[in-house]
Amino acid sequence: MSSIKKDENFSEWYNEIVEEAGLTDKRYPIKGMNVWPAYGWKIMRYVDSYIREELDATHHDEVCFPLLIPQTEFQKEKEHIKGFDAEVYWVTKAGDNELDIPLVLRPTSETAMYPMFSLWIRSHSDLPLKIYQLVNTFRYETKQTRAFIRVREIHFFESHTCHVDEEDAQKQIEEDIQILSRIAKKLCMPYMLLRRTEWDKFPGAYYTVGIDTTLIKGRSLQLGSIHHYHENFSKPFDIKYEDLNGDLKYVHQTTYGMSERLLGAVIGVHGDDKGLVLPPAIAPFQVVIIPILAKGNVEEVEKQACILRDELRAAGIRVELDDGDERPGNKFFKWELKGVPLRLELGERDIKNGVVAFARRFDGQKGSFQRSEVTSLVKAELDKIAEEMDAKAWAKMKESIISVDDLENPPEMILRFGWCGDENCGKAIEEKTGLKILGTPYIHEEFHGKCAGCGKDTDIVVYSARAM
Amino acid sequence: MSSIKKDENFSEWYNEIVEEAGLTDKRYPIKGMNVWPAYGWKIMRYVDSYIREELDATHHDEVCFPLLIPQTEFQKEKEHIKGFDAEVYWVTKAGDNELDIPLVLRPTSETAMYPMFSLWIRSHSDLPLKIYQLVNTFRYETKQTRAFIRVREIHFFESHTCHVDEEDAQKQIEEDIQILSRIAKKLCMPYMLLRRTEWDKFPGAYYTVGIDTTLIKGRSLQLGSIHHYHENFSKPFDIKYEDLNGDLKYVHQTTYGMSERLLGAVIGVHGDDKGLVLPPAIAPFQVVIIPILAKGNVEEVEKQACILRDELRAAGIRVELDDGDERPGNKFFKWELKGVPLRLELGERDIKNGVVAFARRFDGQKGSFQRSEVTSLVKAELDKIAEEMDAKAWAKMKESIISVDDLENPPEMILRFGWCGDENCGKAIEEKTGLKILGTPYIHEEFHGKCAGCGKDTDIVVYSARAM
Repeated sequence: MSSIKKDENFSEWYNEIVEEAGLTDKRYPIKGMNVWPAYGWKIMRYVDSYIREELDATHHDEVCFPLLIPQTEFQKEKEHIKGFDAEVYWVTKAGDNELDIPLVLRPTSETAMYPMFSLWIRSHSDLPLKIYQLVNTFRYETKQTRAFIRVREIHFFESHTCHVDEEDAQKQIEEDIQILSRIAKKLCMPYMLLRRTEWDKFPGAYYTVGIDTTLIKGRSLQLGSIHHYHENFSKPFDIKYEDLNGDLKYVHQTTYGMSERLLGAVIGVHGDDKGLVLPPAIAPFQVVIIPILAKGNVEEVEKQACILRDELRAAGIRVELDDGDERPGNKFFKWELKGVPLRLELGERDIKNGVVAFARRFDGQKGSFQRSEVTSLVKAELDKIAEEMDAKAWAKMKESIISVDDLENPPEMILRFGWCGDENCGKAIEEKTGLKILGTPYIHEEFHGKCAGCGKDTDIVVYSARAM
Repeated sequence: MSSIKKDENFSEWYNEIVEEAGLTDKRYPIKGMNVWPAYGWKIMRYVDSYIREELDATHHDEVCFPLLIPQTEFQKEKEHIKGFDAEVYWVTKAGDNELDIPLVLRPTSETAMYPMFSLWIRSHSDLPLKIYQLVNTFRYETKQTRAFIRVREIHFFESHTCHVDEEDAQKQIEEDIQILSRIAKKLCMPYMLLRRTEWDKFPGAYYTVGIDTTLIKGRSLQLGSIHHYHENFSKPFDIKYEDLNGDLKYVHQTTYGMSERLLGAVIGVHGDDKGLVLPPAIAPFQVVIIPILAKGNVEEVEKQACILRDELRAAGIRVELDDGDERPGNKFFKWELKGVPLRLELGERDIKNGVVAFARRFDGQKGSFQRSEVTSLVKAELDKIAEEMDAKAWAKMKESIISVDDLENPPEMILRFGWCGDENCGKAIEEKTGLKILGTPYIHEEFHGKCAGCGKDTDIVVYSARAM
């Protein structure tokens, strides 16, 4: 890593670290479409594996829908198409033929899936229908792109569910929030759940819960969202079921999605001036072993290092032994840059004393493990690191939020203030301050105060931040 | 299943079974772009998991390259572009803007990857470079489409390797053939390795080894291919390395790919008039338990069935207990259609006698297991089924090949005959007979005979078949 400091110039620090650590290659000849090299893709696949684990455990079926959507289907829900029209890619030609009906590259899959749902769902016994897919989506981003955070080909998961009524769909949203809490825990990732304003909800949604975190002081980053669609899509797509009385009813739908931004957030929240800091659950290597060699002991130390590696590997720990020719100091730098949570050092003296030296990437803390109990001690240390990373990140996010009474010269923080609930007043606040109202806490927070716009008494509290 | 017989009308049988068994849904509003519902996608994901296992074990790194390729890169290798020009999809528009440089949806990823390879490779120490990805590709198929076999969005793996010289690339091809043998074994899939003729090799390849099997008498189905590219791509894409003497040299490349056709072949090779027959390694459920209930014993039988399921599951066997309300006969049909390799039946008498009745899907053979040893017996039976399916399929393919001296009124089989090696003579044979020359055996077969075209003495033997 060069001398760029995270706290001084986050953007440059971020742009450099993603390439230096081998997470992405931005030299692909289309802006905003990057290559996933092996190291970055491995981390993303660990994130994916937890998503699958959680969605499978909650009885979502994994499926895979086509990428291309005919224009005719894409335009069925009017709000939805208005929201996406300016940012979709169009396939208009195949071979030498102009296509009769142009095809859209999925920006999200509602309009691909829902014509099929209307064929799949006949009766109440087909409900709830809960499916998901892990695919790439496409958005013609016109703003400045940024690896993982604002790209034009986006790796993401989307779950789609259909229910007998509004209430059952609502229960799904509660389940989604539980799923989120477990996935976020693996990433040591703090988040806010904020119900978006009417003018900021997902195109076509009944309501939207944004999942936000923060990387830069006073700025928020949306990690994903959960939507209640009510009957907004089931009507235009004619998704009906026969209830117990033989009456035809429209299903109520929800969707839930998070993207590779999760990885962007991991980099931004945990990384430091030395490079990446990976949560143990998604680290391709959770442990790296560096043998400390000196003349005369090379063979024995190398042998012991191999034994140590094999022991840890047999216990299911993802471990790399760096037996290359570089000096230990260079190896330290290299693996710190790559974010390996725990470094073990093994030299002649350690072997004699029956210990293994360690250094934690997260906070640099050093110590040593008894060689005889190293497997269980390493496992316990990785768990401890994850707990501490999680706690530290949550504390830092909470410290970055401040309650304010008015918006005159607000500090560069995430702001919490009263709002009367009127759309015009909310939009006026946004225009005047350049802030974005993220929404009202989805988990209720008690509040009595005055609207920061018009000064009226109100029980509604909102969070706001500058967009990243 | 309706009364369509596999042997009488393969096409109709195939088209019906893929939908009835829940492998695909062809009602998506774009022809040749089908939906993967849960059951089909699960099977494909097992196939993918073996591909990953094999490629990871042979030190290929999994990566993910962008889907879209700029026209300018796509056109760099002249043979390659000629081969694909008529069948690619073009993105020409994004939002309201016409793109300056149209983008191709990958039909395969040479032209996406190789500009990056030329940045990644500097010296001999960067070689061999071995990577792969599991993605979807797109071909504008103008022929009749068929699920998994001829589709327009194709799920596949592609591995790409770079080597110091022709010989090292050749070694890679030997490794690829070993990988193939292990993957095919999981699918109980017989295959032929045939070096394609010069006029039938992959556009841009130095030589191509086709991997073929057969579903219909006298017709071949290509499952995948392995290519040696020599310097054919490294020159136009400028992929050079510095060798030990400091000289700049072009890398030698290979590629290897197989698609969802593997699943189509599994259906066609193993299926029968009752439906799918799945090899145990890729069956979402390897075992289904059907409780045989009668008045008075319901509670005890259901309890014992649950205990049996939990025991098998704990042993790592993928098992489903069908405790639905249908009659056992209906359940038998349903799970036979879905191809579950082993059915277990548990009734009152079985419990008393300390046995579990079984029926093998593959050949209908019935018997019973001692309840006390059921876990190890089920595992052994699944292994036995796999062995027997594999042996039967290989024997059947071999029986479908016949050596002939001339091509007057050849039988509806895969034909093996002499060829002088001359391109014009080969093309004349193809034209006259309507057969396609698949190629010469990659694993050498001793041969002395006459060319079926011109009658000259020759040591070259070729295989041919009608295209499916």
